[in-house]
Amino acid sequence: MSDPTPGPGAEPAEGEETLLDASKLEEQWHQYAELFERLLRDDEREELRRTAAALSPGDLSESLRYLGVDDTARVLQLLPPDLVADVLAEIDQYSVSALLQLLDIEAIADLIEEMPSDEAADFVGELEDDQAREILAAMEPAERQDVAELLRYEPDTAGGLMAKEFIAVPQDATIMQAVDAVRAVEADDREGLHFVFVVDGDGCPAGRIPLVTMLLQPWSTPVDTIMERDPLRVSVDLDQEDVALYVQTHDLVTLPVVDAAGRLVGVIQADDVIDVLEEEATEDYGLLAGTSEELGETSPVRVARARLPWLLGALAGEMATMQIMKHHQATITTTVALTFFLPAIMAMGGNTGIQTSSVVVRGLATGEVSIYRIGRYLMRELGTALLTGSLISVCVMVAARLLLGDMEVAVVLTIAMMTVILSAAMIGTTIPLLLYRAGADPAIATGPFITMSNDFIAVMIYLGMASLLIR
Amino acid sequence: MSDPTPGPGAEPAEGEETLLDASKLEEQWHQYAELFERLLRDDEREELRRTAAALSPGDLSESLRYLGVDDTARVLQLLPPDLVADVLAEIDQYSVSALLQLLDIEAIADLIEEMPSDEAADFVGELEDDQAREILAAMEPAERQDVAELLRYEPDTAGGLMAKEFIAVPQDATIMQAVDAVRAVEADDREGLHFVFVVDGDGCPAGRIPLVTMLLQPWSTPVDTIMERDPLRVSVDLDQEDVALYVQTHDLVTLPVVDAAGRLVGVIQADDVIDVLEEEATEDYGLLAGTSEELGETSPVRVARARLPWLLGALAGEMATMQIMKHHQATITTTVALTFFLPAIMAMGGNTGIQTSSVVVRGLATGEVSIYRIGRYLMRELGTALLTGSLISVCVMVAARLLLGDMEVAVVLTIAMMTVILSAAMIGTTIPLLLYRAGADPAIATGPFITMSNDFIAVMIYLGMASLLIR
Repeated sequence: MSDPTPGPGAEPAEGEETLLDASKLEEQWHQYAELFERLLRDDEREELRRTAAALSPGDLSESLRYLGVDDTARVLQLLPPDLVADVLAEIDQYSVSALLQLLDIEAIADLIEEMPSDEAADFVGELEDDQAREILAAMEPAERQDVAELLRYEPDTAGGLMAKEFIAVPQDATIMQAVDAVRAVEADDREGLHFVFVVDGDGCPAGRIPLVTMLLQPWSTPVDTIMERDPLRVSVDLDQEDVALYVQTHDLVTLPVVDAAGRLVGVIQADDVIDVLEEEATEDYGLLAGTSEELGETSPVRVARARLPWLLGALAGEMATMQIMKHHQATITTTVALTFFLPAIMAMGGNTGIQTSSVVVRGLATGEVSIYRIGRYLMRELGTALLTGSLISVCVMVAARLLLGDMEVAVVLTIAMMTVILSAAMIGTTIPLLLYRAGADPAIATGPFITMSNDFIAVMIYLGMASLLIR
Repeated sequence: MSDPTPGPGAEPAEGEETLLDASKLEEQWHQYAELFERLLRDDEREELRRTAAALSPGDLSESLRYLGVDDTARVLQLLPPDLVADVLAEIDQYSVSALLQLLDIEAIADLIEEMPSDEAADFVGELEDDQAREILAAMEPAERQDVAELLRYEPDTAGGLMAKEFIAVPQDATIMQAVDAVRAVEADDREGLHFVFVVDGDGCPAGRIPLVTMLLQPWSTPVDTIMERDPLRVSVDLDQEDVALYVQTHDLVTLPVVDAAGRLVGVIQADDVIDVLEEEATEDYGLLAGTSEELGETSPVRVARARLPWLLGALAGEMATMQIMKHHQATITTTVALTFFLPAIMAMGGNTGIQTSSVVVRGLATGEVSIYRIGRYLMRELGTALLTGSLISVCVMVAARLLLGDMEVAVVLTIAMMTVILSAAMIGTTIPLLLYRAGADPAIATGPFITMSNDFIAVMIYLGMASLLIR
């Protein structure tokens, strides 16, 4: 097919894959969903089957996300099991649970056997315990063993990310034997295969051979003479964030995973790491915004539950701020104009706090900010706060004089604004660094809590200075 | 080496690569930096050379980030050119510019020739125009042509991401000829080679062959009979965010890029996409926090310049809020206690606004929120706001009664809080969606601007209701 943008109107011939226009993926997924709905309504099963089967599994699962569970099930029932397995591995958990109610255990077990072991384990891991046990029992022993092993690892570790589909040959093998090992893998499982690993007598990785090397050497060559020695590897219990940093630092496509004894037990592929990075970025973004909900979550109750801790925490903090204001009631009553600038002083403190803390947190996550260069970093933040603080203080002084004509308030406001911005910058920089050093997640020090602390401190500084300076 | 945690103390034997402990990468990079500094001070050049050369290029460049430019240059001068090229491709622009002043044009050109074409182009693209021209002129014609071509594409498109290192064979070739094409590639450039592409008479991709398939077939097989037809591909001018979504959807390792005529002109690797995702996540995170600075930026002036637009914009908004308060001066003066709860009502409106807008923005970025399912999404947000709003309103009513004993303020506060939370949720949901539909970046509607709008609306609702209900 030479036209790269056929759209859902063009009917693919049997066996030909439909290429979507990469610049309008979402629009086309939605168009396919509408087409599926129409074809289901008209009971055009054959055309539906052909159209759906011609999509890549990724495009198909994205399109199905627009359909209800029943319609999704009706589409999937028309498709070959290997494609259904690929699709199930991609669509979200809510749809999967509902779909499972439409299939019997035996059919689900067959589907799971078709999946790569890491996706099969993720899938089974999300089911109810009873259901998972039944499905595992119905699987072929070889696949069951792989999945059961992977289920023993924490989901957010190297063990939870890895797959069992790798090839290992002994050190005394020849390329011929390595090729035979590749040939023994089922054709479907060869897709992500770019390296053969060489293991020593204990099963520990001694080397790796890129397939390109195997292709260019005589097959009688001993693998020992051409392998890249001591391949990079990670331990099975390594946290997934560390796995991602490791893969990024070394630009790896396939990363071997070893157990406590150093034995090769699985491999992690680059696309798994892409998912981890996205997950971690979403988590940090959510913490900055003050929520820990799942992005696809549909239940308002669960969303509210994910957001309330931040809201209630912030509310408790603002009650403390209220006490400060109550304490300065006399000053406020005498000079009501002071309260007019409360929103501004709180906003500048809050925003400065968020800016500094977020840059530290994101910098720590991406490796741009190092705990070993804190001094340099604090100086930079102090310098920045002096610059922004001076400019903003001058702005509010002018505004207070022009809009209010009250010199006393203008003086208090200017001094307080500078103090608030400097203190917010210092708090926003040091708290995440201290949390990081203490082994906690610095991302919890962003968002509502930093805003709340800075609100409290801003009001304290502002009204404290006012009580001292006015009258 | 069987011990996976040798640390900088263990001296690697010649030719052996040092494996770092993946759970403490940053700590070890820092230890190596300190070791390099000590060895430089003691002029232990041979040990320095051996230690540095034994690190992987990724680990070495991370370690060198802790050194000054002069020390970095002194380390690099001891190393072979291919390793220096790998390191230069990884370290940040600030260090590179300084390093370049220590080398002559000819030496730089030689180094750039060693880099993969995409990294070479990124490197040259960041230099001053004059310097770039001189360096290009000093390069070998073949490498110069590749780099010059890549420089013509926008950096944030598929063309800006792709590399020229790919293999294409005609449709009438045999595997034997494909293997010869692989053999013709320099050994260093074979690393990321996992597919051979098959092109038709016009140079358009007709298929791709994974190396694993080539390995298992007789070499006399025509490529036409075993290739995967119509490989997924993107256009050279596709935006890098769309490239990332495409690669993620299809779990690709190597993505072919075609020009306007559909001809194969380059390939994008999964590790390039990892960098794009990180860059985009950092950008969105910065917008949520109200800053557009580069994470590694060292100059307070440039950092302040990146943060001030948000601070000044928010300040302008808070001046409008001030006018609202001034307008209600009479009410405030009569019932000063009203102001005690201003921070709380602003914080709840601001936090709710940030929570809802951030989830929309991140959801749009990752594909979890679709512009085609807005209705469902709005209902969810409304439901959530009703739940959180009710709970928080009850909390503040109780707080106002207990802490203040003022029934009038408590009633105003409770009604206003519910209204503020509902309106903040609606604003936080609709504004990013409207921006997205208008083709703008929804991420600008997060952070300080959403907070400022919600501050304004919260104060307006709260004091407006107070003026109506009290007296």
